[in-house]
Amino acid sequence: MNIPADIPRTYHDEFAANYQAITQKKDRLLLFAGDQKIEHLNENFYGQSIHPDASHPKHLFEIAHHAHVGAFATQLGLVARWGADYPSINYIIKLNSKTNIIPHTAHDPISTQLWSVDDVLTFKKNTQLPIRGIGYTVYLGSIYEDRMLHEAAQAVYQAHLHGLVAILWMYPRGHYVDEHKKDDYLAGATGVAASLGADFVKINPPQTTSLQQQKALLNRAVQAAGNTKVICSGGPRVPHKEFLTRVHHQVYEGLIAGSAIGRNIYQQSLPEAIAFARALRALIIEQASVSEALAIAQHYEHDQRPV
Amino acid sequence: MNIPADIPRTYHDEFAANYQAITQKKDRLLLFAGDQKIEHLNENFYGQSIHPDASHPKHLFEIAHHAHVGAFATQLGLVARWGADYPSINYIIKLNSKTNIIPHTAHDPISTQLWSVDDVLTFKKNTQLPIRGIGYTVYLGSIYEDRMLHEAAQAVYQAHLHGLVAILWMYPRGHYVDEHKKDDYLAGATGVAASLGADFVKINPPQTTSLQQQKALLNRAVQAAGNTKVICSGGPRVPHKEFLTRVHHQVYEGLIAGSAIGRNIYQQSLPEAIAFARALRALIIEQASVSEALAIAQHYEHDQRPV
Amino acid sequence: MNIPADIPRTYHDEFAANYQAITQKKDRLLLFAGDQKIEHLNENFYGQSIHPDASHPKHLFEIAHHAHVGAFATQLGLVARWGADYPSINYIIKLNSKTNIIPHTAHDPISTQLWSVDDVLTFKKNTQLPIRGIGYTVYLGSIYEDRMLHEAAQAVYQAHLHGLVAILWMYPRGHYVDEHKKDDYLAGATGVAASLGADFVKINPPQTTSLQQQKALLNRAVQAAGNTKVICSGGPRVPHKEFLTRVHHQVYEGLIAGSAIGRNIYQQSLPEAIAFARALRALIIEQASVSEALAIAQHYEHDQRPV
Amino acid sequence: MNIPADIPRTYHDEFAANYQAITQKKDRLLLFAGDQKIEHLNENFYGQSIHPDASHPKHLFEIAHHAHVGAFATQLGLVARWGADYPSINYIIKLNSKTNIIPHTAHDPISTQLWSVDDVLTFKKNTQLPIRGIGYTVYLGSIYEDRMLHEAAQAVYQAHLHGLVAILWMYPRGHYVDEHKKDDYLAGATGVAASLGADFVKINPPQTTSLQQQKALLNRAVQAAGNTKVICSGGPRVPHKEFLTRVHHQVYEGLIAGSAIGRNIYQQSLPEAIAFARALRALIIEQASVSEALAIAQHYEHDQRPV
Amino acid sequence: MNIPADIPRTYHDEFAANYQAITQKKDRLLLFAGDQKIEHLNENFYGQSIHPDASHPKHLFEIAHHAHVGAFATQLGLVARWGADYPSINYIIKLNSKTNIIPHTAHDPISTQLWSVDDVLTFKKNTQLPIRGIGYTVYLGSIYEDRMLHEAAQAVYQAHLHGLVAILWMYPRGHYVDEHKKDDYLAGATGVAASLGADFVKINPPQTTSLQQQKALLNRAVQAAGNTKVICSGGPRVPHKEFLTRVHHQVYEGLIAGSAIGRNIYQQSLPEAIAFARALRALIIEQASVSEALAIAQHYEHDQRPV
Repeated sequence: MNIPADIPRTYHDEFAANYQAITQKKDRLLLFAGDQKIEHLNENFYGQSIHPDASHPKHLFEIAHHAHVGAFATQLGLVARWGADYPSINYIIKLNSKTNIIPHTAHDPISTQLWSVDDVLTFKKNTQLPIRGIGYTVYLGSIYEDRMLHEAAQAVYQAHLHGLVAILWMYPRGHYVDEHKKDDYLAGATGVAASLGADFVKINPPQTTSLQQQKALLNRAVQAAGNTKVICSGGPRVPHKEFLTRVHHQVYEGLIAGSAIGRNIYQQSLPEAIAFARALRALIIEQASVSEALAIAQHYEHDQRPV
Repeated sequence: MNIPADIPRTYHDEFAANYQAITQKKDRLLLFAGDQKIEHLNENFYGQSIHPDASHPKHLFEIAHHAHVGAFATQLGLVARWGADYPSINYIIKLNSKTNIIPHTAHDPISTQLWSVDDVLTFKKNTQLPIRGIGYTVYLGSIYEDRMLHEAAQAVYQAHLHGLVAILWMYPRGHYVDEHKKDDYLAGATGVAASLGADFVKINPPQTTSLQQQKALLNRAVQAAGNTKVICSGGPRVPHKEFLTRVHHQVYEGLIAGSAIGRNIYQQSLPEAIAFARALRALIIEQASVSEALAIAQHYEHDQRPV
Repeated sequence: MNIPADIPRTYHDEFAANYQAITQKKDRLLLFAGDQKIEHLNENFYGQSIHPDASHPKHLFEIAHHAHVGAFATQLGLVARWGADYPSINYIIKLNSKTNIIPHTAHDPISTQLWSVDDVLTFKKNTQLPIRGIGYTVYLGSIYEDRMLHEAAQAVYQAHLHGLVAILWMYPRGHYVDEHKKDDYLAGATGVAASLGADFVKINPPQTTSLQQQKALLNRAVQAAGNTKVICSGGPRVPHKEFLTRVHHQVYEGLIAGSAIGRNIYQQSLPEAIAFARALRALIIEQASVSEALAIAQHYEHDQRPV
Repeated sequence: MNIPADIPRTYHDEFAANYQAITQKKDRLLLFAGDQKIEHLNENFYGQSIHPDASHPKHLFEIAHHAHVGAFATQLGLVARWGADYPSINYIIKLNSKTNIIPHTAHDPISTQLWSVDDVLTFKKNTQLPIRGIGYTVYLGSIYEDRMLHEAAQAVYQAHLHGLVAILWMYPRGHYVDEHKKDDYLAGATGVAASLGADFVKINPPQTTSLQQQKALLNRAVQAAGNTKVICSGGPRVPHKEFLTRVHHQVYEGLIAGSAIGRNIYQQSLPEAIAFARALRALIIEQASVSEALAIAQHYEHDQRPV
Repeated sequence: MNIPADIPRTYHDEFAANYQAITQKKDRLLLFAGDQKIEHLNENFYGQSIHPDASHPKHLFEIAHHAHVGAFATQLGLVARWGADYPSINYIIKLNSKTNIIPHTAHDPISTQLWSVDDVLTFKKNTQLPIRGIGYTVYLGSIYEDRMLHEAAQAVYQAHLHGLVAILWMYPRGHYVDEHKKDDYLAGATGVAASLGADFVKINPPQTTSLQQQKALLNRAVQAAGNTKVICSGGPRVPHKEFLTRVHHQVYEGLIAGSAIGRNIYQQSLPEAIAFARALRALIIEQASVSEALAIAQHYEHDQRPV
């Protein structure tokens, strides 16, 4: 574990505790991504092949609670409404969010801070919830990039000043972003996150379908990030085996440090979601193979009760 | 009653008192909407079939006072001018407002905070008026969405820090809002409000004319909101029976927690308005049927005096 | 006199004193409008039929001093340069101003605060000048409306917190303002001012030439304003009798509470200007008829000395 | 000397000392304008007929030091770099500046504050340099006018609160500025400066070639300014006699209070520049005739050493 | 060494120590430029003829540590992640940075502050790292120029208030920048930096291929900068001899005070990079000839270990 220099000495223990909690002492992170109620409105939570329970906020908290994910990332407001019932989840407070109504191709994206790190600290103190860190999304290449880079740099710095872990979502997006260079941007995006001081950087995985190129691109992104850990987003839902295989390749060939997964977990029924999140944890944190993880995912049929 | 985690323990009682006052201890809210003198200029207050008294600010306060609505939502400035004469109304201070001069289709809407929660708290302390909470409108999908999301998140958080109830008006509006998806946005809008930590979210009711679809859409919006309560706006004035039937369906089939009604109340004479507001209260809060409520509304003819 | 609820109890006497001073204890206001050196540059002060003395700032202060107008509204900077010589004028500090170089039809107007209420209070304390209140212009319907509504709401609130009278200039102006609806906007504009908590709202008088319609429109604007007092601007210079007749109709038929007059006073020689301002005061405050006021205006020929 | 009312009584003496120092107790100001290294980049400092020493910053300070100009106006940064070597120059700190890369006709000008009055005061206290006041440029008619008017009003007010002299550069400039009305704007510009509370206003001289019209326009601008003193900019370099004749006419016919001159002084060799600045001082402050001043300017040939 | 007047007397020693450290007591600066992970994303760090180690952040710190460059300029975040391992590097914290996704010709560049000088000071205090100063980039001629000029002026002023050295990157860039005048802008850019109070100004070298013109242009830029030291950027990688010859000419004919070099150093293997940086130090600081420097650069083959 790397303790960055901007963590004051008096906060080293607190930062270490936060970092170890979400990485489950294995330097790997399974982040349960739950900020989509703003980011994607209800589109991720309702529709064909999405379980009817998915859109209730409680669904997300139940999964996070029972699956022992590394951390659950969502907005402060949602934690305010449900956190008292789930006091043992490791929370990452997502500081900014935007809706998906405006197409990125039509108008460059801007997403600004809803709550400051100070707000998070007050909230943590008032609630005694195990809030472990903060998250912030930067849209590189947007004409509003400067505002998000500034807020991201400040969020990381302020979080570290108080011993919180800092995670940056890094997405090149906007009119001037060259779609043909999306894969080239990956190592750029992780390098920016490192320059902003982040502990983790979340990127979208490469677009290429070649496994070899995927590996090379992820290796390059990991190298450019240095001691900032790279994690990949999960994306839209696919069959269990396909998804586990993909994540296994990203982690064990791409050498990334974990995943931030939402839809592939929560669009299922609660027992299925919990089982699948546990499967992912085994695969990412405990070095389970794809088949071993798959077996864990299928275990829910035999044990319907959430534990 | 849910006490969100961002209410400090020392403010639990005050929040509970505020919440119980406006929901009349029934977890339901009849909000008398009175912010239109800015939002709609004089258009709601003058014209054919609008009572000539309607545009005088006193008309609104008289109704709010005599009808025992759950709460009366209006701007701080108007409360400053009339509140001393109406010290027992439960007030919700609407923090932002804009006029309707600029068409939303021509220029994306922006409505920013006129007063801060701090201003409201000072005002409450100086006046001892029963100010129960704050309201804020967010135009989702506007290119200025980020500024309103930020102010809304802060308003909710600051209100809760001091025990006030927080209500968000959530309207997808602007150039990039797809009119054909308006009904799909409903559950998205309530999910955003939940993620911002709101206690109540006010939405416009579904546009579909199918009662079954209305019910399904409202159920979905209620589910997505979790423990954030959903209320619907009343819209332009329609005949009493039609309006009561619609609200009854929204509350008892759609499962929403109440209504925010302006024009359908205040465009009538004072006695009629008071009687109709009482009818709505009976229907929403006390589970009166449409016919029972209608009888209350018609009672004004026999008792012209405001009570 | 109405003491708004946002005036703290400890400032009731000060507010009452300020209000009584500028309304001369008659609930009517003759406001001498002197902010045009920024608003209209030198156009109001030089040209055919304008007295050659008009453009010297001293001209304005001499008139305000000798004519006993209710209050003289101008920028803090101008009061800073001349106020020491005119320590008994009731001042209204105009907080914002813009030039007239950019046509409103070409680019939506924006006029932002030059000085804060805090600056005014410091200035008042340092100078001991009888500063009675503040003024602020809002251009409703401008795409920058939100910034002006915010500053106006804050200016009123902060002024009231310290016992100062608050006057809003309310003008619908900008690309999206429908010129055909200008008269309809009047009651909207006064309603907005009331919702912002203003004590007085200055509007441009109706455009219609029908006296009956003028009366109806002003009555409607007065009703919508509630206990916020409506005053009309004077506009470009016209012959004395015509102007006095118009103001008389506005006040005694339109039922407004006074006028804000600049050009029709100061474009004359000092003695004429003083006499005419006195005539207006008699007409507005002391219920003089048009003929009585006209006689006062003509009195200057017999008494050239300013008193 | 006029001590404006916004100077607190405890700062009267300091303001008087500052004012007397830069006006050399004659209510006239020869301002050596040295902010062009930002405003005009190197264009004023290098080229045909410009002395090769001109572009070195030291050249400006040497002139200011040896010529006993009323004051030397330049940016805080440049004074920080050279002021320790020139501790007896009267400095006016120019608070804002922009480059000339963007043509005003293509994009409306905006020039915002680089340092606050507070920065200037700290700097003055730390260095003990005789900083006498501040300067700020406003581009009237720019679509960004409101931001500059606000900063200018604040700069004047804050400067006066601490006994500093305040000088405004007032230039109508931008897409909506009517070039045919430039001369009409002059009295408007000085009136704005007076309304902002400035002690001095710098304008560009009239464009007309008619001496009589020049005189009339300047007289009008002086009248509109009241007790705010008007000074004219010097503009591009012209032969000595022509320049002195022009300034003489501006001061003694136009009745302005002095000049702000840069290029006509500093584009010469150091001895010539010093001599010419002295000539200007004699003409402006000590009522020398054009011929007398010309003699002083030519004296440098006989006395090459700077004194 | 010049100690600017805005350094408070109590910070003279600290400023002197910082200045002497990075100039190695020779008034010359070899700045190792390492802010490109944001400025150029991964483009400078991966590709043909770039060493495969280049993109790992550690590569940069290893070079800076072993080559004894004057200072290493990079973002605070990157120093936070690696500084604890490299506690003896002289750091310059680059306060602002932007990515290169948006072409300057398509949208004017804006790069705003990520960290304040206050953040840098807290960071320095907490870490005890030898942070010697700050850097900031200004894009002259951008329509956002005013925001960067303001932040730059403030950064220099605040840095000096606390004894830090201030370096400005000055690049004319944007739609209105005339490419044909790029060389003319050079002396303008250094003059702006001087007016902002910078200790060093980094410019891109002249575009002309004529050595004589290069010399003249640099001489002019040096003169316009006065006691602000001029350094040139290194640009894309070229063969060793060509690069050393160019830098030698810039320093010894152009009379600039040093260079800010990134790609020409770090795109090589670690031993090569260290050797080449040492060669540059010898050439710039210790007056080595091109051949002498070349010999040092080639020495790495005989001594592969970093020292």
